[in-house]
Amino acid sequence: MRWNKISDAVVRRLPIYLRVLDDLAKSGESPLISSQELGERAGVGSALVRKDLAWFGEFGKQGVGYEVEYLRSELRQILNLDREHNVILVGVGSLGAALARYAMRRYQVDESFRLKLAGLFDQDPDKVGRTYAGIPVYPMAELNDFIRKHNVRMAIITVPADAAQETAVQLVNSGVSAILNFAPVKLILPEHVQVANADLTLELQRLAYYLPPEKTRE
Amino acid sequence: MRWNKISDAVVRRLPIYLRVLDDLAKSGESPLISSQELGERAGVGSALVRKDLAWFGEFGKQGVGYEVEYLRSELRQILNLDREHNVILVGVGSLGAALARYAMRRYQVDESFRLKLAGLFDQDPDKVGRTYAGIPVYPMAELNDFIRKHNVRMAIITVPADAAQETAVQLVNSGVSAILNFAPVKLILPEHVQVANADLTLELQRLAYYLPPEKTRE
Repeated sequence: MRWNKISDAVVRRLPIYLRVLDDLAKSGESPLISSQELGERAGVGSALVRKDLAWFGEFGKQGVGYEVEYLRSELRQILNLDREHNVILVGVGSLGAALARYAMRRYQVDESFRLKLAGLFDQDPDKVGRTYAGIPVYPMAELNDFIRKHNVRMAIITVPADAAQETAVQLVNSGVSAILNFAPVKLILPEHVQVANADLTLELQRLAYYLPPEKTRE
Repeated sequence: MRWNKISDAVVRRLPIYLRVLDDLAKSGESPLISSQELGERAGVGSALVRKDLAWFGEFGKQGVGYEVEYLRSELRQILNLDREHNVILVGVGSLGAALARYAMRRYQVDESFRLKLAGLFDQDPDKVGRTYAGIPVYPMAELNDFIRKHNVRMAIITVPADAAQETAVQLVNSGVSAILNFAPVKLILPEHVQVANADLTLELQRLAYYLPPEKTRE
């Protein structure tokens, strides 16, 4: 089941709610949580919590709140995190290698992170055959076959800027439909492909806007 | 001059416009750009381009468009990127080291990236004294002095999740007011502090929502 009309702003908050519930389940604090407390811990208002969740069903009881384990399992299902997905990463530079380690650690420690890094890809023959965080690096020539064989639909792009568009097109042509893009370029892809841009340059430039006026040094 | 009432959604698009103008200036294609073309290259509608820019002044001429160099210089000024800022990074694990290299490369190749990584910090004595991308690692005990001495107001946090809040408070107490946070936790900080969360776990979990229904393997 998909809820196609739901705005991405709502979808963005679901993993935050899920994280709050994961933490609660781990700490074993209480089997129930009010929308007030869920909102507080997630950093949004309680009315928004109720509105966001109402898109997907009736999860809470008036005056009682939400059952932590139940809502947690429902959110996982909504986010497709009730089953495992194979993910690949293309571009094993220093950022790519660091992200491979990061993703494997999340996969190991976080029950709601069902995204398994199945393979790394690089065009550098010196990198092919090496492993990072236990994951092998494959040559680009094997990309298409690997994606089809392992039913990969999600990919992380950490290639240089000038190779990103071509890489993305290759991924999409092989069947990938969700991309986390670290290259500082805007990818132009068919509408059915969902792209999240982790563009650190833009984030840092945006932060600069909020800097207070320069102080003179003492 | 600050424009305090402007929404963050507008501010987020300014670095994207700036990037389009940077690319145009580099390629030397044309000294003018229409809002249509600026929008197309930035991935937003032309009406939104005009509306966004109108918050800050009258930059274009009806029927002529925007002067690339003029708008570029104005956007840099609005984003505080007309001068250099010292930035520090705390937590030199594999992600921190990769980001240090990334930030230094951006600083070297991108004229509109005036954010200079001035120092790295880590609590591990084995890392202190080493350099990454030419930038030295300092001990946490020197954090406060370094921030004051180098007038640092922006920081990148790449420490483990359980150390992030404490690190952020220490940064803010020393004078930092803008933080790019890679730790998978919600930081609780005074309102004047601007936080951008580069939370890869949340991004990947959100992308999973958009995955099409599972295909059976052949």
